[in-house]
Amino acid sequence: MVDGLAALYRPESIAVIGASDDPDKVGGRSIGYLDEYGFRGNVFPVNPNRDTVQGIKAYHSVAEIDAEIDVAIIATPAAKVLGHLEECGKRGVRACIVFSSGFGEVDEAGRQQQDQFVEVARRYSMRVLGPNCQGVANMGTSGIAAFSTCFSTNRVRDGAIAIVSQSGAVAGMLSDIQHDRPAGIRFWAATGNEADVGVAELVDQALQDPAVRVVEVYCEHLKNADLLARAARRAAQAGKTILMLKAGVTPAGTGAAGSHTGALAQDDAVVDAFLRHHGIVRVQSLQQLADYAQVFASPKPASGNRLAILTNSGGLGVMMADRCARAGLELAELRPATRSALAEYLPAFAATGNPIDVTAELLANSRLLGQTLTVLAADPGIDTIVVALGILGKGYDVEQIVEDLDEVNRTAEATLAVCWIGGVEYGVEELVRRGVATFTDDAACMYALGRYASHGRQRELRAMREEPAATGAPGLSAWTGVASASGFLSENASKQLLRSWDLPVVDGHLVQTADEAVAAAGRLGYPVVLKLCSAEVTHKTELGLVCTGLATVTEVRAAAESVRTRADEAGVDPVEGLLVEAMAEGAVEIALGARRDPNFGMVMLLAAGGVHVEALADFQLVFPSASRTEFLEAIRALGIHPVLANYRGIGPLDEAALADLLAAFATRIAAAGSEVAEVDLNPVFVAAAGRGVTIADALIRLDDGGAW
Amino acid sequence: MVDGLAALYRPESIAVIGASDDPDKVGGRSIGYLDEYGFRGNVFPVNPNRDTVQGIKAYHSVAEIDAEIDVAIIATPAAKVLGHLEECGKRGVRACIVFSSGFGEVDEAGRQQQDQFVEVARRYSMRVLGPNCQGVANMGTSGIAAFSTCFSTNRVRDGAIAIVSQSGAVAGMLSDIQHDRPAGIRFWAATGNEADVGVAELVDQALQDPAVRVVEVYCEHLKNADLLARAARRAAQAGKTILMLKAGVTPAGTGAAGSHTGALAQDDAVVDAFLRHHGIVRVQSLQQLADYAQVFASPKPASGNRLAILTNSGGLGVMMADRCARAGLELAELRPATRSALAEYLPAFAATGNPIDVTAELLANSRLLGQTLTVLAADPGIDTIVVALGILGKGYDVEQIVEDLDEVNRTAEATLAVCWIGGVEYGVEELVRRGVATFTDDAACMYALGRYASHGRQRELRAMREEPAATGAPGLSAWTGVASASGFLSENASKQLLRSWDLPVVDGHLVQTADEAVAAAGRLGYPVVLKLCSAEVTHKTELGLVCTGLATVTEVRAAAESVRTRADEAGVDPVEGLLVEAMAEGAVEIALGARRDPNFGMVMLLAAGGVHVEALADFQLVFPSASRTEFLEAIRALGIHPVLANYRGIGPLDEAALADLLAAFATRIAAAGSEVAEVDLNPVFVAAAGRGVTIADALIRLDDGGAW
Repeated sequence: MVDGLAALYRPESIAVIGASDDPDKVGGRSIGYLDEYGFRGNVFPVNPNRDTVQGIKAYHSVAEIDAEIDVAIIATPAAKVLGHLEECGKRGVRACIVFSSGFGEVDEAGRQQQDQFVEVARRYSMRVLGPNCQGVANMGTSGIAAFSTCFSTNRVRDGAIAIVSQSGAVAGMLSDIQHDRPAGIRFWAATGNEADVGVAELVDQALQDPAVRVVEVYCEHLKNADLLARAARRAAQAGKTILMLKAGVTPAGTGAAGSHTGALAQDDAVVDAFLRHHGIVRVQSLQQLADYAQVFASPKPASGNRLAILTNSGGLGVMMADRCARAGLELAELRPATRSALAEYLPAFAATGNPIDVTAELLANSRLLGQTLTVLAADPGIDTIVVALGILGKGYDVEQIVEDLDEVNRTAEATLAVCWIGGVEYGVEELVRRGVATFTDDAACMYALGRYASHGRQRELRAMREEPAATGAPGLSAWTGVASASGFLSENASKQLLRSWDLPVVDGHLVQTADEAVAAAGRLGYPVVLKLCSAEVTHKTELGLVCTGLATVTEVRAAAESVRTRADEAGVDPVEGLLVEAMAEGAVEIALGARRDPNFGMVMLLAAGGVHVEALADFQLVFPSASRTEFLEAIRALGIHPVLANYRGIGPLDEAALADLLAAFATRIAAAGSEVAEVDLNPVFVAAAGRGVTIADALIRLDDGGAW
Repeated sequence: MVDGLAALYRPESIAVIGASDDPDKVGGRSIGYLDEYGFRGNVFPVNPNRDTVQGIKAYHSVAEIDAEIDVAIIATPAAKVLGHLEECGKRGVRACIVFSSGFGEVDEAGRQQQDQFVEVARRYSMRVLGPNCQGVANMGTSGIAAFSTCFSTNRVRDGAIAIVSQSGAVAGMLSDIQHDRPAGIRFWAATGNEADVGVAELVDQALQDPAVRVVEVYCEHLKNADLLARAARRAAQAGKTILMLKAGVTPAGTGAAGSHTGALAQDDAVVDAFLRHHGIVRVQSLQQLADYAQVFASPKPASGNRLAILTNSGGLGVMMADRCARAGLELAELRPATRSALAEYLPAFAATGNPIDVTAELLANSRLLGQTLTVLAADPGIDTIVVALGILGKGYDVEQIVEDLDEVNRTAEATLAVCWIGGVEYGVEELVRRGVATFTDDAACMYALGRYASHGRQRELRAMREEPAATGAPGLSAWTGVASASGFLSENASKQLLRSWDLPVVDGHLVQTADEAVAAAGRLGYPVVLKLCSAEVTHKTELGLVCTGLATVTEVRAAAESVRTRADEAGVDPVEGLLVEAMAEGAVEIALGARRDPNFGMVMLLAAGGVHVEALADFQLVFPSASRTEFLEAIRALGIHPVLANYRGIGPLDEAALADLLAAFATRIAAAGSEVAEVDLNPVFVAAAGRGVTIADALIRLDDGGAW
């Protein structure tokens, strides 16, 4: 038996409860579309007052229908929805789509009604889409169980794109935009309030369809991170892509989203890190979603970022070359064989470097573009070719040029895109019809190509991730006894735990008396640091409980006494003792942390350390399952990285050791599971290359009750 | 008599030397266009072999023409151009346009030929456009002295836009893009090799035309900075705007530009600062040029950045609200009166905050958009209204909606733009026809509106600039005697000069002996700094010639001796003495400099100081004539600024004093004129608010022979 999700994805029989005879009414549109697009499955209008609806036999109730029902649309007043769901459940309907609104988007009472829908659905193993949603459509079968007007604005073509959106209007806009793009739409869904079925499950369904190559997602709140991560893995395995526009990012946008769908604010930096970690490509606007889809729908895998620019306009070539670096592309170095072959075809005054300029000679020889393209396609040092055409008006043989572009697009290994600005519209339209990625904005074209190349590279990095070690978590139970009421370990206990994890913690000893402190300092070697150790104090420096650079016995003794006195004055209790430590070696301070996010699980924070961390907000978020290379990339993405790469007077610092620390730390906190709630290692000192990193201060919280 | 530039801008009689009977040939197109578009001036084809050309009486030479000739096009083989220029000069032609190519864009010999053109032109007070250019067109008179195919691809409308481009193909693309935008094109120019007339002079001409509101400029090398600055002032006075796409920015782009037009690399940070300083709005792509032009062509001045978003799609509202901050806009706080008026019109479930969502109720009441717009237009707290429409397909009264949008656009004081995504194309086309700024990309729409608002604000800041003081330059001649051969003043001389300019230099004394050093330290108060002073040493620290934190007589004496010894060892000669100085107070180090750029004159550099300045490249470039508020904005644009705004443990630092220093420094170097080549003040210490700034080190170079 087909399950509810599969039924939603590709319904073969559709009942419409609240069916209207008027194909322009919400309860009538789906019936009209199913007829207009030629749906071959069964359609069952349900209306207690009519025997036919839009010329089709109607039923007075769902119970009357004596056939399998994959999907039932409910388009009745809000008050009647629950009853209809119950009937559908009894009747064995696999999934219901609730068009009706007036629920969770309105108020708390409405949200509670939605919860009842889910209870009913669970009872009958039925799935529910909505309420307050515009439905689903599968263009492979013309099964349009939706009321969006986008199915009447244009005739929606079947193809390689799936559109899954929390907003019905946005789903409609994406469909309209796609009308002028090469690929058609296999699946379309607008999920509304998501009482039961959400974006993630439908994305996962769409990825299982062999026809689908790209899923375009719009959402305002990212639910079911685990399901989405699973879908992302499925996409990666199949060489498909999820593109996501996550809105509700800024305070202004979050406020607007709250009043739109009641979406809760999410920390956008975490959302961003999550999407990146799972290879979900984030976009910033609707047009960019469609722009990227053109390139990502390509069956050719992205192999690298070496770009050849072929143009008929020197100026356009300059602009596109300018944008290479920002788009993450680089101009390919043409092989000598390529250069000499180009020199054969092109006039003496043409530029045969890269960009390659065929000049206005294309007017005289309309095969010139095809000839040079064939030469470029044979150069293995080129991953991507962009053909940048300016105007091409009267006098140009546009048919021939289109023919040649299409030919090379079909046969070349390199990714190809055309950017055509100005001139006759026929050229762009015909290229789109033939499935060539075609842009009319040079910036959009370059960003899409660059993102495709970097996506390919990131996919390789993700493939290098190791499975978590099977040894399981180190026992944390021994440490729970020393945690404070709020779950914090003292600095000493935190560091002992980190040492048991084989992480590079600064040498030190916990002592009680000034004499013991002096003895410890003697063992460590001067100068030393002396601090109060207590699980009850998390901000020691502010209270004067940290003394650094103690160079003599006298200084250590004095420090031990003054720290004890200040702790007494501040009423710190219990005091675990005094921590005497070596001075950590290093030029740059880094902060490393990990916290558990309620939606996304354990997230690691890597930041520039030192006193101005917060002011400069120079940080990267990464997930523990990242590979060491990805950790290295995170380090290199820090604003402070140029200083790490070449510290004045020292040279390169030990970023390899820092990457090792990140990888080891990640393995440990992943293995520790939910017992560790929060870790802050700050500062971590990074010394000169080959001299390692040292954790100088550490704070661990064990329980998992705290918020992010 | 009309001068050459004015003749180029608006030719009333046009001769075509090398006239072709074929309207598709380079020498024939202009004649065809002039006929097709209905030019009413005189057209004189010149061809030694024909009596008529394209049905018009032809002349065998320019000399034969017995009427005034404003402009002569030369479309002959390269070898004949010089002779024709000579003939034209003799004949009193006011300006020549050389279509012919094969000059400076090919090789040095070609560049020398161009120089001869200029010599001929000067001799006859004639101006020359090109060579290797596509010409000019004035759509107000249909005077098309150009061969671009863009005049045949679409019928170019007259209007408020001028297009001035170094590249002919790019000028053609801009014309084609403009075809789908509200404003028409008054003037079009492609300047090619710019042997004589360049972009700046034509921009200035265009701004003198009352019909022109926006000039779109494309260039690869910015020549004649002074002329461009003058044009920018003219634009500001008339409330007009110059939009500029400056290409050849990155190494890749610069390389491409070099092979395209032989353009030289320019420091893009200086170009950027120059454009900003003069209120020339820089754009990044051709589409953005046209996008911005839509908004900047508005006769309504930009009054602020408070935006109201009116939409029929909650999702679109969220996306546009999200983009506010990045676009430099903020959501307007609606007045209570506005809110209650909105509540009257809108259904209970509609969002009446900002964004305002009219919901699908617009389907039932097509006046709803117009009604809510009228309410918003009456709210004085709203500077800009964006109407964000998603789809609007079957069932919507698009005619009514367009009517209402047009009405409010004409009558409201606020700037208005429409972003319409999806749905029937008629709506967008009709709004464009009526001159409403209309976008189909939400991101592009918001960036254009944001840039318009910030341009308005920057225009106000520029208006606050003071005229340079009339007192003239302080005498620098006294200092030239102490400069080194390469023009460097010693640190002491540099600081004395800065003190004579009333800038806050750290206290100090130049001494010769250790005893004098100790005496000086006593006068200043301990601790002190001691450095070698010599115009021959510019990197003292690396040679161990700077000792800081000297706290006792013994330390000062020892430092004096060791510095003298090290200077001897390093062979420093002549030595001016030892500089004993107070320790400057301050938490953050800033670097402040000024250098003379060959194109753009004196440019000031403001940067984060300290050891990592170069690694982090955190700097702003400003020009001396900026106002104090602009200097303050430059300080606030530094990446390090959050640290200045709230230094941990100290609080806000004295950014007011830093702005004062920038303003005073700017006045002084502006008054000093070309005698000062370069100044480096590094570090400048910034202390806590109210405690000022102190220049701790300074280096001045007096001659102006050095390169930037």
